[in-house]
Amino acid sequence: MEAIDPDYLPIPGNVLPRFAGIPSFMRLKPVALDDAGAVEIGLIGVPFDTATSNRPGTRHGPRQLRDLSTMIRLVNQATRIAPFHLARCADLGDCPVNPVSMESSAERIAGFYEQVKAKGILPLSAGGDHFVSLPILRGLVGLDGPVGMVHIDAHSDLYPPYFGGFDSHGTPFRRAIEEGLLDPKRVVQIGLRGTSIDMSDVAFGEAHGVRMIMIEEFRALGVDAVMAEARAIVGDGPTYVSFDIDAIDPSQAPGTGTPEVGGIFVHEAQAMIRQLIGLEVIGADLVEVSPPFDATGNTAWVGVNLMFELLCVLADKVRRSR
Amino acid sequence: MEAIDPDYLPIPGNVLPRFAGIPSFMRLKPVALDDAGAVEIGLIGVPFDTATSNRPGTRHGPRQLRDLSTMIRLVNQATRIAPFHLARCADLGDCPVNPVSMESSAERIAGFYEQVKAKGILPLSAGGDHFVSLPILRGLVGLDGPVGMVHIDAHSDLYPPYFGGFDSHGTPFRRAIEEGLLDPKRVVQIGLRGTSIDMSDVAFGEAHGVRMIMIEEFRALGVDAVMAEARAIVGDGPTYVSFDIDAIDPSQAPGTGTPEVGGIFVHEAQAMIRQLIGLEVIGADLVEVSPPFDATGNTAWVGVNLMFELLCVLADKVRRSR
Amino acid sequence: MEAIDPDYLPIPGNVLPRFAGIPSFMRLKPVALDDAGAVEIGLIGVPFDTATSNRPGTRHGPRQLRDLSTMIRLVNQATRIAPFHLARCADLGDCPVNPVSMESSAERIAGFYEQVKAKGILPLSAGGDHFVSLPILRGLVGLDGPVGMVHIDAHSDLYPPYFGGFDSHGTPFRRAIEEGLLDPKRVVQIGLRGTSIDMSDVAFGEAHGVRMIMIEEFRALGVDAVMAEARAIVGDGPTYVSFDIDAIDPSQAPGTGTPEVGGIFVHEAQAMIRQLIGLEVIGADLVEVSPPFDATGNTAWVGVNLMFELLCVLADKVRRSR
Amino acid sequence: MEAIDPDYLPIPGNVLPRFAGIPSFMRLKPVALDDAGAVEIGLIGVPFDTATSNRPGTRHGPRQLRDLSTMIRLVNQATRIAPFHLARCADLGDCPVNPVSMESSAERIAGFYEQVKAKGILPLSAGGDHFVSLPILRGLVGLDGPVGMVHIDAHSDLYPPYFGGFDSHGTPFRRAIEEGLLDPKRVVQIGLRGTSIDMSDVAFGEAHGVRMIMIEEFRALGVDAVMAEARAIVGDGPTYVSFDIDAIDPSQAPGTGTPEVGGIFVHEAQAMIRQLIGLEVIGADLVEVSPPFDATGNTAWVGVNLMFELLCVLADKVRRSR
Amino acid sequence: MEAIDPDYLPIPGNVLPRFAGIPSFMRLKPVALDDAGAVEIGLIGVPFDTATSNRPGTRHGPRQLRDLSTMIRLVNQATRIAPFHLARCADLGDCPVNPVSMESSAERIAGFYEQVKAKGILPLSAGGDHFVSLPILRGLVGLDGPVGMVHIDAHSDLYPPYFGGFDSHGTPFRRAIEEGLLDPKRVVQIGLRGTSIDMSDVAFGEAHGVRMIMIEEFRALGVDAVMAEARAIVGDGPTYVSFDIDAIDPSQAPGTGTPEVGGIFVHEAQAMIRQLIGLEVIGADLVEVSPPFDATGNTAWVGVNLMFELLCVLADKVRRSR
Amino acid sequence: MEAIDPDYLPIPGNVLPRFAGIPSFMRLKPVALDDAGAVEIGLIGVPFDTATSNRPGTRHGPRQLRDLSTMIRLVNQATRIAPFHLARCADLGDCPVNPVSMESSAERIAGFYEQVKAKGILPLSAGGDHFVSLPILRGLVGLDGPVGMVHIDAHSDLYPPYFGGFDSHGTPFRRAIEEGLLDPKRVVQIGLRGTSIDMSDVAFGEAHGVRMIMIEEFRALGVDAVMAEARAIVGDGPTYVSFDIDAIDPSQAPGTGTPEVGGIFVHEAQAMIRQLIGLEVIGADLVEVSPPFDATGNTAWVGVNLMFELLCVLADKVRRSR
Repeated sequence: MEAIDPDYLPIPGNVLPRFAGIPSFMRLKPVALDDAGAVEIGLIGVPFDTATSNRPGTRHGPRQLRDLSTMIRLVNQATRIAPFHLARCADLGDCPVNPVSMESSAERIAGFYEQVKAKGILPLSAGGDHFVSLPILRGLVGLDGPVGMVHIDAHSDLYPPYFGGFDSHGTPFRRAIEEGLLDPKRVVQIGLRGTSIDMSDVAFGEAHGVRMIMIEEFRALGVDAVMAEARAIVGDGPTYVSFDIDAIDPSQAPGTGTPEVGGIFVHEAQAMIRQLIGLEVIGADLVEVSPPFDATGNTAWVGVNLMFELLCVLADKVRRSR
Repeated sequence: MEAIDPDYLPIPGNVLPRFAGIPSFMRLKPVALDDAGAVEIGLIGVPFDTATSNRPGTRHGPRQLRDLSTMIRLVNQATRIAPFHLARCADLGDCPVNPVSMESSAERIAGFYEQVKAKGILPLSAGGDHFVSLPILRGLVGLDGPVGMVHIDAHSDLYPPYFGGFDSHGTPFRRAIEEGLLDPKRVVQIGLRGTSIDMSDVAFGEAHGVRMIMIEEFRALGVDAVMAEARAIVGDGPTYVSFDIDAIDPSQAPGTGTPEVGGIFVHEAQAMIRQLIGLEVIGADLVEVSPPFDATGNTAWVGVNLMFELLCVLADKVRRSR
Repeated sequence: MEAIDPDYLPIPGNVLPRFAGIPSFMRLKPVALDDAGAVEIGLIGVPFDTATSNRPGTRHGPRQLRDLSTMIRLVNQATRIAPFHLARCADLGDCPVNPVSMESSAERIAGFYEQVKAKGILPLSAGGDHFVSLPILRGLVGLDGPVGMVHIDAHSDLYPPYFGGFDSHGTPFRRAIEEGLLDPKRVVQIGLRGTSIDMSDVAFGEAHGVRMIMIEEFRALGVDAVMAEARAIVGDGPTYVSFDIDAIDPSQAPGTGTPEVGGIFVHEAQAMIRQLIGLEVIGADLVEVSPPFDATGNTAWVGVNLMFELLCVLADKVRRSR
Repeated sequence: MEAIDPDYLPIPGNVLPRFAGIPSFMRLKPVALDDAGAVEIGLIGVPFDTATSNRPGTRHGPRQLRDLSTMIRLVNQATRIAPFHLARCADLGDCPVNPVSMESSAERIAGFYEQVKAKGILPLSAGGDHFVSLPILRGLVGLDGPVGMVHIDAHSDLYPPYFGGFDSHGTPFRRAIEEGLLDPKRVVQIGLRGTSIDMSDVAFGEAHGVRMIMIEEFRALGVDAVMAEARAIVGDGPTYVSFDIDAIDPSQAPGTGTPEVGGIFVHEAQAMIRQLIGLEVIGADLVEVSPPFDATGNTAWVGVNLMFELLCVLADKVRRSR
Repeated sequence: MEAIDPDYLPIPGNVLPRFAGIPSFMRLKPVALDDAGAVEIGLIGVPFDTATSNRPGTRHGPRQLRDLSTMIRLVNQATRIAPFHLARCADLGDCPVNPVSMESSAERIAGFYEQVKAKGILPLSAGGDHFVSLPILRGLVGLDGPVGMVHIDAHSDLYPPYFGGFDSHGTPFRRAIEEGLLDPKRVVQIGLRGTSIDMSDVAFGEAHGVRMIMIEEFRALGVDAVMAEARAIVGDGPTYVSFDIDAIDPSQAPGTGTPEVGGIFVHEAQAMIRQLIGLEVIGADLVEVSPPFDATGNTAWVGVNLMFELLCVLADKVRRSR
Repeated sequence: MEAIDPDYLPIPGNVLPRFAGIPSFMRLKPVALDDAGAVEIGLIGVPFDTATSNRPGTRHGPRQLRDLSTMIRLVNQATRIAPFHLARCADLGDCPVNPVSMESSAERIAGFYEQVKAKGILPLSAGGDHFVSLPILRGLVGLDGPVGMVHIDAHSDLYPPYFGGFDSHGTPFRRAIEEGLLDPKRVVQIGLRGTSIDMSDVAFGEAHGVRMIMIEEFRALGVDAVMAEARAIVGDGPTYVSFDIDAIDPSQAPGTGTPEVGGIFVHEAQAMIRQLIGLEVIGADLVEVSPPFDATGNTAWVGVNLMFELLCVLADKVRRSR
């Protein structure tokens, strides 16, 4: 394997053991956004959880994900993709936020991703609660929109405003559709489940043409059929990928704020993401890892493995566009 | 959705966030048994574990189940059943017990359930160790018996007396058969597994006509075939449902006293309970959640989701009988 | 011992074991604020943590405190005070909050405490993060102010605005002084420690006449001398008591968002609160218990014991004013 | 250092690392009671918790104590006592119990200790809940009684019958006084604290002449004065020592069923036990370690260190009587 | 059921409850190797982890496995094999190791297993890290080699020397092939997955004829086809079985040093081992259980259940050779 | 406050919240040793635990310490020292080690510290197990030796070779004395306690003139007297400071491999280190934090606070030498 630029390769475990060193994402070089001109894929933390309706803690997600990510090596054994050899990857640090203000944080996040976009960097983001996908899309899509989305989650996040008028981590994609950032007919949601308040999110999604695949339908169809349909829905237009860790069964990912039992298993999720290779992905996120609810780091370990799969999708896109 | 009586609806999360408030079962109104004349389905805790042979702690089960149950919302997305709109449900509090006496507790529990029965309330009980199903059946069935039972568990609980003559949480259904509370030919047990002392429980079950489905047979037949057979076995006579959380794989439900590896997955259990809709269910329990062995509450979260599925079965029965 | 009104006594452990039952504060009767005309002391949860700058989770505090509080019995063995026999106490439930808005929550909290005050109820509040003391004081003091305060904490909470203009859980008492709710010359802070950003809070406090007792001075003077001075500072005017659990050494109270090592020991804190008996206390709070950072409940157990000591202070005041 | 009999020395850590091997108490030779003719001090587990009124789990205490005890070495650095060189010590295994019957267990335990006594073995017991001290005393004292007792505990365990007539882990010493096993005038209790139901235990104790030292008096007098008084109270008659781990502050010993904040610190407890050297101790126990409430083993580590101090007291007595 | 020799049966739970007693493997009699002339199957701990490249702690594995193993009973309900009735089994204690020296430990371990072999005992070993399989094979195979191996693991452990020339827990089977202990053409590896450094282990394996079954191929083929192929590969020659707990999905076995997500489920692993019955197995190990990364014991509980399945394979071989 | 060089100040919490960002020690700039010409104090991790005799895990110490260290601010409120304003401090990353070889690691560590010394950087090191102090001293003292040492620890680490000839984390200072790196007459050890194998370490220390202060003598003398003596012993010659976290009471620092109950309290340790100001300190370390035994991070939080106190001592020395 020959890397594009050895400077962007992770520190090998044979030089510094994997438990050692200051933990950046996947042991990549930390690069400030201002110095990131050469970076093709940027791994970014968005440590924000002030839009959380239930159990908080995802502000601590990026750090725990970085910690566990140091166990990630170079080659995806299932696909043989070696992402760090296909694209110049770097850890761009954490996006600025204001922990006591959703509005102020939304502006800071959107501004950061505008710069990411301006530099031509493909972002792979780590939340934070799911609200962060909204300002990310604002920065990344902006006036170019709308884009399509493959959305893997236990919840649709198409809920109406919270507490009579507020945004929350349950509303981002309703807002993104309303703001013209997402084309609802090119949005597919997979893994929805759990008890519902009143099915109003489903009504909104169906009214706008979002394809919503409940977990029971997912099990009935199987991974391959579901992903074939997902690829058909988003087609070859620009597509965002958003993966909420609560899509995964709580036995494998307990560290999240709104777990729902009976979820997708990790090996299924790996297979799902691998089938996104070839799409015109403009960025991806992995959100809702909440370390206080899983101090063992097991949830984050699942999370960074899924981030690695997403990275392979992004790196393959860089390869194709080279 | 229109409720039968708004007074019996859970407190909405948009009025009081789900982490707030004194935690009753599913945020239902706490009602003392004496005042429960209008209640159709009663959620009841039975905090007793003095019959436990191995690891104790299920006395703390009802409280942890209540805590986690506040994340349950209104509609079952898989079946579209909205149980609180079908039947007047309430939290009847915890049944009286004496923590240092199995005999005294058995009397108190049976007495409580006699009253529940007398008031025409369908009970959904939360253990406690599995011994409590015996006094519950004594109170609920009494001289009317015997009834059928769908029993999902890792263990048959048909074991001979413990320590040379004592009841335990391994003996309730042998005793219930001996006492004429259960009709063994209308009893089906699903999910049995783990190492056995001497197979004497299986011998007892087979001798009395109990249908015992080991986990290997369960996997070979699949959920649909197993549940079709279960429905055929209990038929349209009165039927009790007893769900021991240790039926579930320990990765999803570690907080229990006698875990057995290689268990039923939660999504399978959800599908199983949904296939009980239509039976003449006279009550149900979810037992053996032991919080000290899972302080995270993940086991209880599985438990209350299964209780919600059981509640849908009971609520649908109320609907049909209206 | 004879109670004023048996209806306001906790449920005895000999009737329902302490691990059983729906957990209200100290097993007291839950009473809605609208029905609380006869209540003299109200125990109130304030499940809000959206002003937290560091580790969140105190929104879950009231529930865990209620859970552990069921182990509290009737008599303070050190002082022989039996608070439930001196005053009619009740659990008034959780104060309304909006988890995604500090401003909206501040209004809701202040409004709730205006009613508490209007009904002549002495409030004993359980946080939530320390920001909640500000709206509590707004409701409780209002235009009558200012009042004095005994403030036991690792931090002064007199910090300047956060992130260039925002309130946080580090600013409530600076704001309360600015708003005329607190008389800084009648405020004493005990237990301050930890690293400081720039000592600007100390400068503010000293400039306004707040007596700030660092932990080193506390250890040099001893509990008795410190509390004698504290009593002298607040004198016989109306006085609020605010106890931040992070005043306690983290070995005894790890479950909090901003722990500082080298803190006050619990037996010292118990002795400190007992020396507040006789003051004109208008209310008290115990804040910053964060269950996700101590799933064992040990921190909450410390917290409810300190709440019990505060309750004795309040109950003795009711007794004196009878 | 020369041992009386090398066969009774613990396995050295330089031969088999301390984390290795089947864990007996302090790495001593396991000896069945029938073969224990040469044993002078027997370490015995009593894994019983069915008399527990609150949080169970102490049935798992002996095993966790054995696990942690393998870190204990040979010499007490404070006193220079090397107990294994003074007396033949062995692990006599766990006393027989019946987990579902207090009565049956009480008989089995008393019978076991009768044999221990008959063989002239000094027992150092590890609970189990505090109820076990009653059958231990029945077996050990029997008709020879009464004996004196140094009792270090947060609770007096002199409470009246539980639930209207039952024994519990709160009643053993009231019963032991009633049965003539303990001479109340030669009983001293140290460390009492926490909230009380109605002070009836104190009334009983005072009426019978038990010296009860509350934690506040303990702090005022200091360890030396308290222990001088304790020695004077029990004098040179036969004396039992009972140490409830909940005497220790919960920060140091959280793993117990009824923790009370503001407790004795471990270094104080060590000093206290060292001052028992020279008394006519007939046996000792360390009870109420509940592993499910401290999976880290930290509580058990405190427990076995206190057991080692107790062992030094017993071994010194063997030395003196040789 | 009639045992060959009652002296080699586990202590029944009806005589001493399962949580009681000094915990030997499966409650079998502890027998020193020197006294093990009559033993047919020896359960042995190898508490060594100094070859671990990532997270340590497996030195504590044997003790935690012993602790949990006391919940194992007598009969395998799936196969009806009762291993303790087929062969004389005993706990041979822990193999000697030197925790600070890989070389010294390798010698001690090899020496121990030479004696095990000399006595004709079939060993069932519990690690320790996977390096221990190398000295076990040296002792067990020695100059008789090479043998075949069924190897279930997330990693091939065929990696090149670590840190430029050192052995580690990632190198044992490369070394075993180089030393002529294993016949690579009779080695099958199942469950391989996770990110790879450079695929050099796969290159080595393929070059030597090792059959390597990645997890994706495992899922595509299914348990039955995979095991049929495995049996064909090892044939009827002497065969070792090595089971690394990290083969199991981390949700079911988090307590290990190098977890890889998307693993084999326990019920699949049970079925896999059952299909080894009939092979000429010369010994087996279960390695890499690391208690510090799963204090709950859930991983060890999985581990001992798999050890029980392996024991059934070994016992059946003893039966056949009788 | 004015910094010497703003580039060496920690990232403020008002710019990036403390839970955000890639965690370097105290949020200082990461600087590679080769680029560290301007650095005056270097914070260095030494992630090595292969010399551990008991419970491993300290290899993970530096990372957890870095994680928690992001909560450290700028000013020591007790002494008003602002270390980052007195000296240019940086995070020099982790020292190279080989996890499977003590010898190889010792060489790498010594080589790294030779360079640190050559650049005139004062090192503040974070272990790792206590063995690392030996190669640190080899690098830092070398042929210039011997130096004095203030050693705060539960253990003397003067033990004879382990397992008949090996170094371990119990032998470093015996070796350092033998190698002429330490002047035993200028070595003071404080806090020694726990059971002893045979007192041979004490014999060695006393024979060489080391002043060994057991915990009982420490308590009898008090912090001030002990530290006055310590300062007198080391005098004004070059002095190393080594702080083993197991000196602290296990209730405050459970996350360590060989805890000993009855230890120094953190507030005492803070006061002790503050009394080292003015000594000719050539470096300091804080060792034996083992994250797997305290996943909460509480131990590491104590550790980094003590590191901050040590940093103040070092920074004050830089100030004086300017």
